[in-house]
Amino acid sequence: LTPLAFLRKTALVYPDHPAVVYHAVRRTWAETYARCFMLAGGLARCGIGRGDTVAIVAANIPEMFEAHFGVPMCGAVLNTINTRLDAEMIGFILNHGEAKAVLVDPEFSEVVERAIRISGRDMLVIDIEDISFEGGKRIGTMTYTELLAGSDPDYEWVMPRDDWDPISLNYTSGTTGNPKGVVYHHRGAHLNAVSNIATWAMPHHAVYLWTLPMFHCNGWCFPWTLAANAGTAVCLRAVRADVVFDLIGHEKVTHFCGAPIVMNMLANAPDHLKHRIRNPLKAMTAGAAPPASVIEKMEAMGVEITHVYGLTETYGPSVICMPQRGWQGLPPDRLARLKARQGVANMALDDLMVADPETMQPVPEDGTTIGEIFMRGNCVMKGYLKNPSATEEAFRGGWFASGDLAVRHPDGYVEIKDRSKDIIISGGENISSIEVEDVLYRHPDIMEAAVVARPDERWGETPCAFVTLKDGRTLGADEVIAFCRENMAHYKAPRHVVFGPLPKTSTGKIQKFQLRERAREV
Amino acid sequence: LTPLAFLRKTALVYPDHPAVVYHAVRRTWAETYARCFMLAGGLARCGIGRGDTVAIVAANIPEMFEAHFGVPMCGAVLNTINTRLDAEMIGFILNHGEAKAVLVDPEFSEVVERAIRISGRDMLVIDIEDISFEGGKRIGTMTYTELLAGSDPDYEWVMPRDDWDPISLNYTSGTTGNPKGVVYHHRGAHLNAVSNIATWAMPHHAVYLWTLPMFHCNGWCFPWTLAANAGTAVCLRAVRADVVFDLIGHEKVTHFCGAPIVMNMLANAPDHLKHRIRNPLKAMTAGAAPPASVIEKMEAMGVEITHVYGLTETYGPSVICMPQRGWQGLPPDRLARLKARQGVANMALDDLMVADPETMQPVPEDGTTIGEIFMRGNCVMKGYLKNPSATEEAFRGGWFASGDLAVRHPDGYVEIKDRSKDIIISGGENISSIEVEDVLYRHPDIMEAAVVARPDERWGETPCAFVTLKDGRTLGADEVIAFCRENMAHYKAPRHVVFGPLPKTSTGKIQKFQLRERAREV
Ligand SMILES: Nc1ncnc2c1ncn2[C@@H]1O[C@H](COP(=O)(O)OP(=O)(O)OP(=O)(O)O)[C@@H](O)[C@H]1O
Ligand SMILES: Nc1ncnc2c1ncn2[C@@H]1O[C@H](COP(=O)(O)OP(=O)(O)OP(=O)(O)O)[C@@H](O)[C@H]1O
Ligand SMILES: [Mg+2]
Ligand SMILES: [Mg+2]
Repeated sequence: LTPLAFLRKTALVYPDHPAVVYHAVRRTWAETYARCFMLAGGLARCGIGRGDTVAIVAANIPEMFEAHFGVPMCGAVLNTINTRLDAEMIGFILNHGEAKAVLVDPEFSEVVERAIRISGRDMLVIDIEDISFEGGKRIGTMTYTELLAGSDPDYEWVMPRDDWDPISLNYTSGTTGNPKGVVYHHRGAHLNAVSNIATWAMPHHAVYLWTLPMFHCNGWCFPWTLAANAGTAVCLRAVRADVVFDLIGHEKVTHFCGAPIVMNMLANAPDHLKHRIRNPLKAMTAGAAPPASVIEKMEAMGVEITHVYGLTETYGPSVICMPQRGWQGLPPDRLARLKARQGVANMALDDLMVADPETMQPVPEDGTTIGEIFMRGNCVMKGYLKNPSATEEAFRGGWFASGDLAVRHPDGYVEIKDRSKDIIISGGENISSIEVEDVLYRHPDIMEAAVVARPDERWGETPCAFVTLKDGRTLGADEVIAFCRENMAHYKAPRHVVFGPLPKTSTGKIQKFQLRERAREV
Repeated sequence: LTPLAFLRKTALVYPDHPAVVYHAVRRTWAETYARCFMLAGGLARCGIGRGDTVAIVAANIPEMFEAHFGVPMCGAVLNTINTRLDAEMIGFILNHGEAKAVLVDPEFSEVVERAIRISGRDMLVIDIEDISFEGGKRIGTMTYTELLAGSDPDYEWVMPRDDWDPISLNYTSGTTGNPKGVVYHHRGAHLNAVSNIATWAMPHHAVYLWTLPMFHCNGWCFPWTLAANAGTAVCLRAVRADVVFDLIGHEKVTHFCGAPIVMNMLANAPDHLKHRIRNPLKAMTAGAAPPASVIEKMEAMGVEITHVYGLTETYGPSVICMPQRGWQGLPPDRLARLKARQGVANMALDDLMVADPETMQPVPEDGTTIGEIFMRGNCVMKGYLKNPSATEEAFRGGWFASGDLAVRHPDGYVEIKDRSKDIIISGGENISSIEVEDVLYRHPDIMEAAVVARPDERWGETPCAFVTLKDGRTLGADEVIAFCRENMAHYKAPRHVVFGPLPKTSTGKIQKFQLRERAREV
């Protein structure tokens, strides 16, 4: 099993169908296959081969898409690096992953140059040239185009020896600490790519917009999904509402994915942009808990939302909020609340359990008892790269421990209440920061919100809210607190409110550890 | 990887969704899971376990569907036996497959009773009771219901130890000789079940009508597909046009499969029946080459046809005639001719080649050079059960030799011209029997047609046509020959025409070896 077979077959069957669209670039599947082949051949010519790591630091540009095929086609392992990391962290990853080569998008040339210096490693550095980006500098020994041109036309690309050969190396987002490396195998990549099709009943020739970073769990395996169903990858450098809606309209986009903050940005876009949506449009969201109000707004503007949940450790989403027939015709806010739950095991996941992490006893399906989410199945990693202590911590009795706290509803659906590290314990009571945020997102003037624990002498901890307002709105802390008290148990309402922008990871997660530090000082 | 996981998950997520429909029987997924569990427990209680063969001789009734899960859930291997075989052949299979138990539909109790006697084996015999069938007799020691009732409620059902554990044993149709046994693994069953979803972009809750015998390649793996996407299996004992159209209308069927002769029967049904089709309806056809005119008629009545091709040896279809964008808007007859080609490798097949069987050199993509179809990939069997000579013959240089002759068109699509054994060689020229049949099917008075070689002193062989007319029509041999000469090269036109019903296998294939014998005597 390997997703590379998808590319070869699609290039044969649909040679002239558009594979990649990016500004003036429109490449067919035959052209894309040829370029991936040349990428593999070019790397091989530079001495890269089976088992070597090839890193890439790039936005969602065509070269990033090609790397998902071309790098494994020479037997190497693709390590997509989070573009928002600093030089220190990128250097750490280049070192830890033992990169032999790195492909660099000009937007990130400076930080990568420093990172390579920090890593102290000697590696092949390839500059990607991107007509749509001004600036950056050449830091490598050759350009991507030159690399391709150097490929031997008689090169024979390399198939994995078996299912378990590595295809990529992904680091976790580092939301709770240092990123950990997860090795993806051809088998898991194949299964997840196909599971994406089944989940969405995705038709052939889907037009997929790249609002989800490809560096995140290999864009949840969607590059390979698109090869499997002969879709079209619509690339874009930066996710801005105007660009996104333009492309949706122009390219007749049918599917896209993104973190809840991306959905929130789109949901709050001006109406004239939203009107560009004409065709049926489906979006998947994961990476953090989507507030129900955001789901509701997206659906109101004609985007059918599928909420999924997973981790880097599970090849991206492995839990899905499958809609039930009985939900049809429910009022939109009720439906959105049901959809805001994380759901049930997807096709690739065998088993999902919410259990007491001490006793491993499943929690009752009562919607209130909190336990940790445990997972088991084909899409769960075997362990972290060169990190036995973290690996040991992550497994318990054959189950993978997600570190996410959740309840199980009477219908069996799982709902995440918090990360273990984010839950707020006030006067002995658990307060789910997600629940409080959900209420805050319902306030018409609030754009974004995050709630963290603030140390408190009397209660142990109390909730502290960090809030960003919509353009031109004003709001006082008192009003925010009053709104919360009206909409939830009083003890859950934040005691403090801080206004201003929120620190985020580039995978769309709010960095609560930073906010917790700030909260101490409030 | 195992399709059994689909059942468990669907029973959890959609417990109340209808799984099986048959006359008054309407069972949900929770009920079906419970019954499959009891079937496994009941068999275990009778001493059946890992690696044992459990045979079943049954029509497409609910018990047959359940056996696809319940039998492997006790670790056993399901051997679905062709219901139209005679006692001799069933006895041979029971023996060759080493059946420890057999489940018997009352419709086949007599022939199975004789078969067991012929096999000389001692085995557990279970009588299925079917309210919708009158007749038959009890030949076993207990009924299916008693078997289920005997199950231990604390029984823990058995998961395969790994992907490669056997799940079922299927015998080829015996069109060209004795049936050969093919062992299916959990892995292949899983992959094919999912590939069915991707091929059709099959939505959740598809309503699937069982016009394809479940004994044939495990109904091409569709029982497991339905578990994966929480569909509904609409069962039926016999495929008759009135019943089929009734069920399509009543149960709001969305998908069905069948051999070309089933499609032909439906295409020639009275118009008042056809009008029961209201919803979008998709059908897959395989098992023999569908005449273009049959595809055209089906599509004209609102059924979207997907033509697929495969063998028992490849878990059923592994080649698919994927429609191309450019085909949209073509005249129906032209479209039907394109769709009558077998196509390209599906998701589960890695490689498809048409090559000279001597040199293994691929034929040019010219639409005229004939070669044999070779296949390679995850869905190809490893070998025949206890038949090393047939296994050796079936593989050449890592490729599986299909025994089917085909051309490759300039667009890469494969078109079968004949089985190796059926091709007619006249005056040194190859004549494709399928091509001649295709012309015959275009004649308005002809219902069914088959063309075989007849020994001829001068030409070596000449084509001899066997023809069935539509009800109430009359036609002379001369007229048939004249029609053929008008529509194809003269040397390809049949020299002899015989009228009357055609001998068929129960997998919907015309038994040409019988016709060849008859042709000698003409
Ligand atoms: N649909 C969702 N709802 C709630 N939380 C989600 C959802 N999807 C993902 N998450 C959160 O994201 C986490 C997985 O993210 P990822 O693997 O990108 O790294 P991270 O856990 O954020 O970082 P690190 O493991 O390095 O701290 C999950 O454990 C969960 O906390
Ligand atoms: N779409 C199709 N077009 C043409 N022929 C087909 C198609 N699908 C199946 N076939 C024929 O059916 C064969 C596979 O059938 P199956 O495995 O049921 O047994 P069989 O080959 O008929 O019997 P046996 O191998 O015992 O002689 C293929 O080799 C091919 O000849
Ligand atoms: Mg994590
Ligand atoms: Mg055969």
